[in-house]
Amino acid sequence: MAVQKPSIPKGTRDFSPEQVAKRKYILTTIEKVFIKYGFMPIETPTMENLTTLTGKYGDEGDKLLFKVLNSGDYLKELKEFNDKGMDHEEMDKTFLPSYTGKLSDLDSKASIPFISEKGLRYDLTVPFARYVVMHQNEITFPFKRYQMQPVWRADRPQKGRYREFWQCDADVVGSDSLLNELDLIQIYDEAFRELGIGNYELRINNRKILAGIAEVVKGIEHMNTIAVAIDKLDKIGEEGVAKELLLSRFLENEIQKLFEIINIKGDQISQLFSLKEKLKSSQEGIKGIEELEFIFKSFDSLLDSARSDNKQINSSTVSSSGVVNYSTNKQLNLKIDFSLARGLSYYTGSIFEVVSTEGSLKSSIGGGGRYDNLTGIFGLPNVSGVGISFGLDRIYDVMEELNLFPPTIKSSNTKVLFCCFDNASQQYALGCLKKLRDANIPSEIYPDIKKVGKQLDYANALKIPFACIVGENEMQTGKLVLKDLHLGTQENFSVDEIIKKIITL
Amino acid sequence: MAVQKPSIPKGTRDFSPEQVAKRKYILTTIEKVFIKYGFMPIETPTMENLTTLTGKYGDEGDKLLFKVLNSGDYLKELKEFNDKGMDHEEMDKTFLPSYTGKLSDLDSKASIPFISEKGLRYDLTVPFARYVVMHQNEITFPFKRYQMQPVWRADRPQKGRYREFWQCDADVVGSDSLLNELDLIQIYDEAFRELGIGNYELRINNRKILAGIAEVVKGIEHMNTIAVAIDKLDKIGEEGVAKELLLSRFLENEIQKLFEIINIKGDQISQLFSLKEKLKSSQEGIKGIEELEFIFKSFDSLLDSARSDNKQINSSTVSSSGVVNYSTNKQLNLKIDFSLARGLSYYTGSIFEVVSTEGSLKSSIGGGGRYDNLTGIFGLPNVSGVGISFGLDRIYDVMEELNLFPPTIKSSNTKVLFCCFDNASQQYALGCLKKLRDANIPSEIYPDIKKVGKQLDYANALKIPFACIVGENEMQTGKLVLKDLHLGTQENFSVDEIIKKIITL
Repeated sequence: MAVQKPSIPKGTRDFSPEQVAKRKYILTTIEKVFIKYGFMPIETPTMENLTTLTGKYGDEGDKLLFKVLNSGDYLKELKEFNDKGMDHEEMDKTFLPSYTGKLSDLDSKASIPFISEKGLRYDLTVPFARYVVMHQNEITFPFKRYQMQPVWRADRPQKGRYREFWQCDADVVGSDSLLNELDLIQIYDEAFRELGIGNYELRINNRKILAGIAEVVKGIEHMNTIAVAIDKLDKIGEEGVAKELLLSRFLENEIQKLFEIINIKGDQISQLFSLKEKLKSSQEGIKGIEELEFIFKSFDSLLDSARSDNKQINSSTVSSSGVVNYSTNKQLNLKIDFSLARGLSYYTGSIFEVVSTEGSLKSSIGGGGRYDNLTGIFGLPNVSGVGISFGLDRIYDVMEELNLFPPTIKSSNTKVLFCCFDNASQQYALGCLKKLRDANIPSEIYPDIKKVGKQLDYANALKIPFACIVGENEMQTGKLVLKDLHLGTQENFSVDEIIKKIITL
Repeated sequence: MAVQKPSIPKGTRDFSPEQVAKRKYILTTIEKVFIKYGFMPIETPTMENLTTLTGKYGDEGDKLLFKVLNSGDYLKELKEFNDKGMDHEEMDKTFLPSYTGKLSDLDSKASIPFISEKGLRYDLTVPFARYVVMHQNEITFPFKRYQMQPVWRADRPQKGRYREFWQCDADVVGSDSLLNELDLIQIYDEAFRELGIGNYELRINNRKILAGIAEVVKGIEHMNTIAVAIDKLDKIGEEGVAKELLLSRFLENEIQKLFEIINIKGDQISQLFSLKEKLKSSQEGIKGIEELEFIFKSFDSLLDSARSDNKQINSSTVSSSGVVNYSTNKQLNLKIDFSLARGLSYYTGSIFEVVSTEGSLKSSIGGGGRYDNLTGIFGLPNVSGVGISFGLDRIYDVMEELNLFPPTIKSSNTKVLFCCFDNASQQYALGCLKKLRDANIPSEIYPDIKKVGKQLDYANALKIPFACIVGENEMQTGKLVLKDLHLGTQENFSVDEIIKKIITL
């Protein structure tokens, strides 16, 4: 066989021991928080049926699906059938026993059914919805699940964007309560703090507020136009947004009204207070404001009562005027953002986005929201859900740039490397090695007979802290040379002494 | 959109919270052992280039690769080009900028380059070889890596065989030392014991012994024929094997000689002693026996010295007659099996297989061996490697059947569920909940206002051990009702008392 110069598909990556350790650190940190908040893990297959995936992510998403060829040599067969002039119906019967469509669907953009019926997981939300429907009889609702798995998108790779990347999702289905939102916000806060990402901003909005804004600005039917435009504020600025809305036949005064609303500043109390005034004619808008208020009020309840150790109900959280006092929320990096409009095609209530505010990346490291009828498409209507997602790879990039990984994370966890002069001392060292391992000390023996200097190079490259050197002398006395590779010092110890020494470090 | 009845691709599975917890228990147990023995993790992409995968697993393996369609609507384009009668060279230029082959390769069985250039990982060994070659300048050799990831094969699904399944591999590359084999055998032993799978058999053989057997039976060129035949001993018995060899023009006395050898019984000393006598005319065979002897001798060294606490070299492990004394190895479930011939197309030295010997499954739960030149195909010759693999899914099935999972493994880790009578008590409970979580006690609040009985049903379904019931009384006194859902008892406690009580459990 000819020698091949190996490569990997673009947008995918190998992970070295150190990278795996760092990624695992992020995953474990997030997972611990999920568990603390009562979430349970599920996993779904890498491949889903295309019938499950297509049509769920919009036309753009359908194009980004990685499709898997059916087994068998379909292309060759296609050629043969093309040559033979076999008709469509015959081909359908031959190749599509499980497919209910027709080969003529071949011309449709999204599906190539007869050579491909499976695709790679595009996100964790649609597989979760499918899971809930398929397993509804085994599930106790409300179902609080987390899922940490890779997803694939045939997107153009660029800095911070990969074709294989991991999502860490937590969702609650089967509960309308806004206390779920409260939990999810706390999960974000706790996980990012645990990871050392203090400089982040959790932006929150509500689709009902966006509807209310549309209603008072120009009419509810214009919500999507408004949402699509203001979603680009960060990129194209107010001028760009205004230009876009003018093109969509918005009047100057409508645009001005819109900006007056989304630019409402101040603390959360006054923000919501001002908005209430502006949206007072929109029932939907007022409902959205009340949902946000409930979330903030609940934060005050939990923070007040946890802080003050007060055994009595703290009624001061709601003032007599009905305006909620949520000044304490400043300690969460929670920011109301009336222009936040992501995921509007499926979110029906709360909308979240988390952005890292330090370093060059400033990228979205998480997002989520409430969707009222996600499982409907799979035959289980009226199940409300709310969820959040952590983007592992973005978080990794941010932490790497800001140097946030603990220095204790290393490629190798080995504490002691046995270095031997010859075969006899290797055989002798095997028993010592076993004792260390029996004491749960990760340890190794350099397997080949090489100069001790070479063996120590290996230990140094892997940042193994100790080397245990064994030769004839050591075998005779039972006292091994223990070399501290960090300090460069060495001393003779028995194996038991070595174990005692290492185990307390 | 029409309602779809959801399903998942055949041979794939969803994993429920309990299943994920059990799978994680296996993975964590194996991983801890890998780390204790000095192995470091890597991860490789789910998709590999087909040029990396094809031709590495034999014709059969090539057929079982899951191939991923290139992005873009290639099939439609293929049809158009077929219609236009575009010639091959033109199509190559249009579609295959990165592909060095020709469209005429389309007729070859394995590759469908112009609509597919990527495939799903088929095992962890070939991606590892590719990794080693691509990252050779960053790697310190010997490189001891572990890798725990899913692989995909378009095999016919059946009991215990899935299209998506996990492998857990540990390999050492860049060292010829048989001490690596010693480590890997210990890893198997330790991991299976930790998992509670005491009834397993680790079969060991050596390709050089198989070569020696072929040499003395009929000639080295018949090794593969012999290997393929005796590999089926378990299934078709001696009679079947003999029949197959007769068809391959083996003579009666050759077959008889073969069975005499592979049926050598007795303890390991006498097995190898008898074999040495029979293979004395084969240099290769003798080398294989010596390799096995070294492994067994080294086991005695490590067990003797660890057991006897003897500070002096234990020279009794090799008797004066040169026959190795390895009686102590009986405590490892290690069995020499001269008929073990798996993976002969790549293994060049040691061959391992692990079989569960209890329960109905009796399936192979692990395997491995030494390969002298795995990275050669990717341009890095003369790098010896030896590795083992754990089959997560088979191990899971065995443990499930034999009821070996610890009863502490549960879907939910939540210790306390707060059940509230109304909105006010919910708001009150939020602070208590926060205190428990701050004390690292996984806990939840039932998010909706429902009858307490309904809320307790949720706790019982998830086997949450305690419920904390909060109503007006509890808010007044600050003493909450803590219900032990296992015993059915209940008592009033302050939040701090509850924390103290739960945290010590």
